[in-house]
Amino acid sequence: MSLGAVFLAELAGTAMLVLLGCGVVANVALTKNKGFNGGFLMVNFGWGLAVFSGVYVAFASGAHLNPAVTLGIWASGAKEFVPGVPVDFAAILVYIAAQMIGAFIGAVACWLAYKQHFDAEEDPANKLGVFSTGPAIRNNGWNVTTEIIATFVLVFVVLLFGKTPSGLGPLAVALLVVGIGASLGGPTGYAINPARDLGPRIAHAVLPIKGKGSSDWAYAWVPVLGPIVGGILAGLAFMAYAPAFAA
Amino acid sequence: MSLGAVFLAELAGTAMLVLLGCGVVANVALTKNKGFNGGFLMVNFGWGLAVFSGVYVAFASGAHLNPAVTLGIWASGAKEFVPGVPVDFAAILVYIAAQMIGAFIGAVACWLAYKQHFDAEEDPANKLGVFSTGPAIRNNGWNVTTEIIATFVLVFVVLLFGKTPSGLGPLAVALLVVGIGASLGGPTGYAINPARDLGPRIAHAVLPIKGKGSSDWAYAWVPVLGPIVGGILAGLAFMAYAPAFAA
Amino acid sequence: MSLGAVFLAELAGTAMLVLLGCGVVANVALTKNKGFNGGFLMVNFGWGLAVFSGVYVAFASGAHLNPAVTLGIWASGAKEFVPGVPVDFAAILVYIAAQMIGAFIGAVACWLAYKQHFDAEEDPANKLGVFSTGPAIRNNGWNVTTEIIATFVLVFVVLLFGKTPSGLGPLAVALLVVGIGASLGGPTGYAINPARDLGPRIAHAVLPIKGKGSSDWAYAWVPVLGPIVGGILAGLAFMAYAPAFAA
Amino acid sequence: MSLGAVFLAELAGTAMLVLLGCGVVANVALTKNKGFNGGFLMVNFGWGLAVFSGVYVAFASGAHLNPAVTLGIWASGAKEFVPGVPVDFAAILVYIAAQMIGAFIGAVACWLAYKQHFDAEEDPANKLGVFSTGPAIRNNGWNVTTEIIATFVLVFVVLLFGKTPSGLGPLAVALLVVGIGASLGGPTGYAINPARDLGPRIAHAVLPIKGKGSSDWAYAWVPVLGPIVGGILAGLAFMAYAPAFAA
Repeated sequence: MSLGAVFLAELAGTAMLVLLGCGVVANVALTKNKGFNGGFLMVNFGWGLAVFSGVYVAFASGAHLNPAVTLGIWASGAKEFVPGVPVDFAAILVYIAAQMIGAFIGAVACWLAYKQHFDAEEDPANKLGVFSTGPAIRNNGWNVTTEIIATFVLVFVVLLFGKTPSGLGPLAVALLVVGIGASLGGPTGYAINPARDLGPRIAHAVLPIKGKGSSDWAYAWVPVLGPIVGGILAGLAFMAYAPAFAA
Repeated sequence: MSLGAVFLAELAGTAMLVLLGCGVVANVALTKNKGFNGGFLMVNFGWGLAVFSGVYVAFASGAHLNPAVTLGIWASGAKEFVPGVPVDFAAILVYIAAQMIGAFIGAVACWLAYKQHFDAEEDPANKLGVFSTGPAIRNNGWNVTTEIIATFVLVFVVLLFGKTPSGLGPLAVALLVVGIGASLGGPTGYAINPARDLGPRIAHAVLPIKGKGSSDWAYAWVPVLGPIVGGILAGLAFMAYAPAFAA
Repeated sequence: MSLGAVFLAELAGTAMLVLLGCGVVANVALTKNKGFNGGFLMVNFGWGLAVFSGVYVAFASGAHLNPAVTLGIWASGAKEFVPGVPVDFAAILVYIAAQMIGAFIGAVACWLAYKQHFDAEEDPANKLGVFSTGPAIRNNGWNVTTEIIATFVLVFVVLLFGKTPSGLGPLAVALLVVGIGASLGGPTGYAINPARDLGPRIAHAVLPIKGKGSSDWAYAWVPVLGPIVGGILAGLAFMAYAPAFAA
Repeated sequence: MSLGAVFLAELAGTAMLVLLGCGVVANVALTKNKGFNGGFLMVNFGWGLAVFSGVYVAFASGAHLNPAVTLGIWASGAKEFVPGVPVDFAAILVYIAAQMIGAFIGAVACWLAYKQHFDAEEDPANKLGVFSTGPAIRNNGWNVTTEIIATFVLVFVVLLFGKTPSGLGPLAVALLVVGIGASLGGPTGYAINPARDLGPRIAHAVLPIKGKGSSDWAYAWVPVLGPIVGGILAGLAFMAYAPAFAA
């Protein structure tokens, strides 16, 4: 596969992921929606099934949809992302650029789908919350810690999927994300994906959203750094762990 | 397969879809039900699993159950709907007619299953809401936009299912619909299917429902046009997208 | 397979079904439980996954777990229930007797698991509600109608599972039951199984449950007759429907 | 496979299980979390998907993750846990030791992920509740009974998975645990696993948790003894039950 095809697949898949993922938050958080106050489990399922759809869209490129996954695969010592795409600096750059741009596009589409509810919403914090994560209790060190742990779980288990016979395919990743959201999403809203958080934050900053407030750039590095560290640690852990069970 | 068999399968499958789909809304919305106020996630699962059952019923005809899917497949340039059924005007007509009639029948069955709760319900808007969708904030342009986006997601991902190895079958579509409902159902209640909305609206108009109000015909074109446009756009997008990953 | 093995499998599987099914109602309905007021969707998932477990336990006998399924298969004109077990009066009797006894045993086990919460519960109606279904609005004719429709859906789709390639196995039935509960469980609490309702009702009548009230025998025939009629109608409908799609 | 590899897999898998399992309780129970008061069904899904992830991590060792499963397999008369690992005293010891240590580590990781919410929480009982189970109505005899029944269901159905063709793999166990939690988790919070309860209780005792209260050692034997008895009974029952359906 060419890097151009990788770019297209990751861009489209991440756009799908973010459209549906930010969408469920909009539904639950923005005034007058039919799913208003639908509960955290609904948000967990919404994001999990956003991943599900995104994986089908980006199946051809391996459906990373997430720089932490791309970097975790790199750290795990893999030779190829998909057949014909070696793990090198150029490929990593293409994956991550596509994910960032796709996340931005998905956020714009989500804003269009919920345009009137953004207009009717009075609280600027709820508007930002649709786009990007924020901490329940702000403390950069502990917030980064939570994101590292949650992303470690994501990338470590995703890497293990490849070692386990199972016919679940995209459903397995979806359920994993439902589970991480339910179990580790409390403190920071589980970005666990730098593109998913930063792309929409940029969209929030540049879109003409009525009555929007700050894009909270002071926090923006936390859901970027935490997932990158967590993903790389997971790749390294996988490299040490998996060979212990080789035949 | 004959067009007569297609007609039977799509009619029965769409009737099943609408019986169960409208059923979950009745359960959540109509007074005195055991599932009253069961939450939006329950509605999402109810509709998703309605699709699940409908797909088994209409498996032989490809289980479109939705004119937006039929038109999306047409727009994608496919040659056959199922073996022996070429994509042509006659077949499209048979699919859509069966879906419309099936949706009407399903709505009648739902009304029978919930007959006493319709009788006991005081708010006419809740009664219509069991049959057909309505906007959270009424604005035809934005409401159509939301339906276009949500139906695009449905049809685009459904078309991609055919390109992706996965043993999930009917479960994949069910989960997709759960996800679309959670993520994009807030503003318009996610018709994403002209037959699912118009068939039951006609049933609402003609059935002797106690204390019913308007069938809101002023809005009826929105959940017809939006899904048709979204489905066709998805078919065109698929036609451009999928070949990029051909071997 | 011998009829003795069928008896054992159906008895054990139905006991598992009713233990877990009545269990989730106990958790949600009886005072002081950790799942108290957990919502109707939780009840739907609890019953669906009760079927899931019961199917594994009774896999050898085809996992009917329900006289409506047994009678539906009979009405569909099938020749064998499982290899070596012809569809005849003796086999039907064995299936149904095992289901009834199993349901009784499962209800006793549920009572033991929740013994203290039965003791602490003040409302006798909540205690009966753990064992057997009751109508939201009492009207025998409409209540039977709802049970007929819901059981028709169950048995018709279960019969179609056999005609559809899918690797879902027990999960498919589980999801179907989640969906039927969400969509058609509002008016009568979806017995959709004469054994599931009558077995536990007998257990309620004979067990020394502290402060129990009436077993509501006036209603007891509704969740027996409705599911039997619905199941037989589904078998007949299947016999007419499936051949239309034969190759 | 070597016992060293078994040790590593069970340790890592059980750590994953407990990190995610205790995590969902933390999210729902500790003040200021985004999932605060998310409902019992969310807890059920969180624990079920914790098992899901844990099974992938410990796939190589058969993913017991639970002394009750290990002992149940022993009681069922199995000859090998996995190829090359005979069922003997040494292997059982390795499995259980790894599970206990893994559970302890998972609890520590959960505490780190939710550190600030433990600090902000005022009620010591909520803090202990994240780590270990406690009874809704305290009565050792009945609490043990509930744990025996719930663990019997877990181990009996898990053993039957091996006898049933199904492509669900780790999903089947996950769904089983969701179901057991919904259906039998009301009275005791479903430990159904001695390591899952005792490992985190030790972590609660030794970690410097701000404002923590008692570790409730008086109850600690209940969620150890009950699951062990339930697991062994399930193994014996399986040994008697499964041969009845042998070809």
